[in-house]
Amino acid sequence: MSKNRLEAFSDGVIAIIITIMVLELQPPHGTSAADLANVLPGWLRYALSFVYVGIYWVNHHALLDRVARVDGAALWANLHLLFWMSLIPWVTAWAGEHPMAPVPVAMYGVVLLLCSISFMLLSWRLGGEGAGHAMAWGSRKNRLSIVLYAVAIGVSLAYPPLGSAIHVALALLWLMPGR
Amino acid sequence: MSKNRLEAFSDGVIAIIITIMVLELQPPHGTSAADLANVLPGWLRYALSFVYVGIYWVNHHALLDRVARVDGAALWANLHLLFWMSLIPWVTAWAGEHPMAPVPVAMYGVVLLLCSISFMLLSWRLGGEGAGHAMAWGSRKNRLSIVLYAVAIGVSLAYPPLGSAIHVALALLWLMPGR
Amino acid sequence: MSKNRLEAFSDGVIAIIITIMVLELQPPHGTSAADLANVLPGWLRYALSFVYVGIYWVNHHALLDRVARVDGAALWANLHLLFWMSLIPWVTAWAGEHPMAPVPVAMYGVVLLLCSISFMLLSWRLGGEGAGHAMAWGSRKNRLSIVLYAVAIGVSLAYPPLGSAIHVALALLWLMPGR
Amino acid sequence: MSKNRLEAFSDGVIAIIITIMVLELQPPHGTSAADLANVLPGWLRYALSFVYVGIYWVNHHALLDRVARVDGAALWANLHLLFWMSLIPWVTAWAGEHPMAPVPVAMYGVVLLLCSISFMLLSWRLGGEGAGHAMAWGSRKNRLSIVLYAVAIGVSLAYPPLGSAIHVALALLWLMPGR
Repeated sequence: MSKNRLEAFSDGVIAIIITIMVLELQPPHGTSAADLANVLPGWLRYALSFVYVGIYWVNHHALLDRVARVDGAALWANLHLLFWMSLIPWVTAWAGEHPMAPVPVAMYGVVLLLCSISFMLLSWRLGGEGAGHAMAWGSRKNRLSIVLYAVAIGVSLAYPPLGSAIHVALALLWLMPGR
Repeated sequence: MSKNRLEAFSDGVIAIIITIMVLELQPPHGTSAADLANVLPGWLRYALSFVYVGIYWVNHHALLDRVARVDGAALWANLHLLFWMSLIPWVTAWAGEHPMAPVPVAMYGVVLLLCSISFMLLSWRLGGEGAGHAMAWGSRKNRLSIVLYAVAIGVSLAYPPLGSAIHVALALLWLMPGR
Repeated sequence: MSKNRLEAFSDGVIAIIITIMVLELQPPHGTSAADLANVLPGWLRYALSFVYVGIYWVNHHALLDRVARVDGAALWANLHLLFWMSLIPWVTAWAGEHPMAPVPVAMYGVVLLLCSISFMLLSWRLGGEGAGHAMAWGSRKNRLSIVLYAVAIGVSLAYPPLGSAIHVALALLWLMPGR
Repeated sequence: MSKNRLEAFSDGVIAIIITIMVLELQPPHGTSAADLANVLPGWLRYALSFVYVGIYWVNHHALLDRVARVDGAALWANLHLLFWMSLIPWVTAWAGEHPMAPVPVAMYGVVLLLCSISFMLLSWRLGGEGAGHAMAWGSRKNRLSIVLYAVAIGVSLAYPPLGSAIHVALALLWLMPGR
C-alpha cells in the first residue's frame, strides 16, 4: 500500500487538530486589557499545544520520509497516534481554563504520554531499526520523554505548575535539533 | 475523470469528520476526578466513532486503490457516503451524552446503517465485481453488517446498552484482518 | 502558476465547508422522538446545503480539469467564490432554525445567488470560451440559476416555503446530468 | 527535505483558518432585517480577515514556488507563521463583536503585525535574496506593512475606527498587483 494517502490523511488530521484548538479559545468577555489578561493562561496553554502538535508533525514527516510502503497494521498504528493527538485540543481547553487544578494538568500529561507511546509504537511498526543514528537518538529521546511524561502526571497531582513546567521543558527538548 | 481529486477531497472530509467530533466533547465543568468520570460515556462513544471513521477511511482507501478512473455517478455515490458519515459527529454527541436513552442510541445505529449501505452502493458503482476474493469477503462482511445494524436499531429501542454492545462488536469485526 | 495548489486549497476549503455545517446542527435537547422531530427542519436544510456544496465541488472539479495554468486574477476569482461558499454554513444554520421566517430564507437565497455569480466570474476568468458544448450548457444553466435565485429572494420574503421550494428545485436541476 | 508536504500541510492549516472563522459568526438571534444589521460589523470583520488570509495564502504560494527544498528551520519558521495566523479567527471574533473598543481592535493589529513579521522571517529563511525584483518589491511592501501595522496598534487604542481603516487600507495595498 502506498504511503501517499497515509501522509495526506495524517497531514489533514494534524492540520485540523492544530487549528481547531483555537476554537476552544473563547474571546474575552469584556473589552479591557484586564479581560485580555484573564485569558492569558488559556492562551499560553494553546501556544504550548501548538508547539507539541508542530513537533509531532515534523517528526511524523521525518519518520514517513524513511519508509516507502505501509501495511494495514501501520495504518492502524497511525490512526492510534492520531486518536491520542485528537484529544490534545480537549485537554488544552480543560488545563488552559484551570491552570492550577491538579486533575486537568495531570490529564494533559496523560494525553502527552499516550501520544508519545503511540508514536513509538508507530515507529516500531514502520521498522525504524535500520534507520541509523538519527533514528536511534530520536528513539532515545522518545523513551526519555515517556518516563518524564509519566513523572509529570504524578508531579501535576501534587503541584500543577511544576507539572506544567515539565511539559514546557520536554517541548524545548524536542525543539532542539537532534544531532 | 481522474480519481486523484476524489481521493484528496474524501481524505479531507474524513479527516475533518474524525477530528471535529472532539469539538463536541465538552471539557468537564469542574476540575475533580469525578467531573472527569462524568464525561467518560461521551468519551467512550467518541473513541468508538473514531474507530468507525478510521475503518471507513481504511476501506475507502482499499476500494479506491482498485479503480483507475471515476465517473460522475461515482462522485455522487461518494458524496452520498460522505453525507451519512458527516452525521456521525452529530449522533456521537447525542448518544454520548445520553448513553441510556433509546432514541439517541438507536439513531446512532441508523447513521451507521446508512453509512454501511452507502459504502456498498459506492463499491457497486466502482465495479467491485472483478476484485476477487478480498472484495467478496469485504462485501459479505458489509451485507452482514447491514443486517446487524438494522437489528441494533430495534435492540437499542428496547435496551440501549445492548444496542451499543452490537455497535462495539461490529467495529471489532471490521478491525479483524480480512483474510 | 500551476493549478495543483489551487485545486488542493479549494478541495480543502470545500471539504471543511461541507463538514463544519454539521457543527451548527445542535443535538436535540431531549432524548425522545419528538425532540428529534424538532430538529428535522435544520437537518433538511443541512442536507440541501450539503447537496449544493457537493454540486459546486463537482463543477469546480470539471472546470479546473479543462485548464492547465492559472494566473493571479484566477486565484482571487477562486477565493471570491470560496468566500461566498464559506457563508453557506452560516445561512444554513439561520434558515434551518427559522424555516418559516422571510429574512433568513431570503438570505439563504442571497448567498446562493452570490455563489452562482462568483462561479460564473471564475469560469469566465479561466476562459471557458473554447470549452465547447458541455461548458456552454453549464453556462446556460448558470445564467438561468442566477435569475431564479434572484426570483427566490423576492418569493422568500413573501412566502418562505415557496422560496425554499425553488432552492430545492434548482439543486435538482444541477443534479441532472448535463447532456 | 521535500517541500511538498510543507505546502500540503500549510494549505490544510490555511484552508481551515479561513473557513473556521465563519463558525465564530453567530447567526442572528432574531429573524428580522434589523437582527441581520446587528451582525453586520462582525460580518465585515470576517470579510476583512478572509481577504487577509487569502493574501497570505497567495503570497505563501508565490514564496514556496521559488524554493526547491526546505530544512528543519524553515519548517519551524513556517509553523511560526501558521501559529500567528491561527490567532486571526480569535481576534476576528473579538474585534468583530466590539468594533468600537480600543483593546480588541488594537489586538487585531497586533496579530496582523506578528503575522507580517513571521512571514518576513520565513522568506528570509527560505532565501529570498536571489529572487530578484518581484521578491524585493514584496519585501519592501512587507517592511512598510510592519511599520503601518505597528502604527495601527497605537491609533486603534486612541480611536478604533481609524485603526480599522488602516487595516482595510493595508489589505487593499496587498491586493494590488506587485508590478
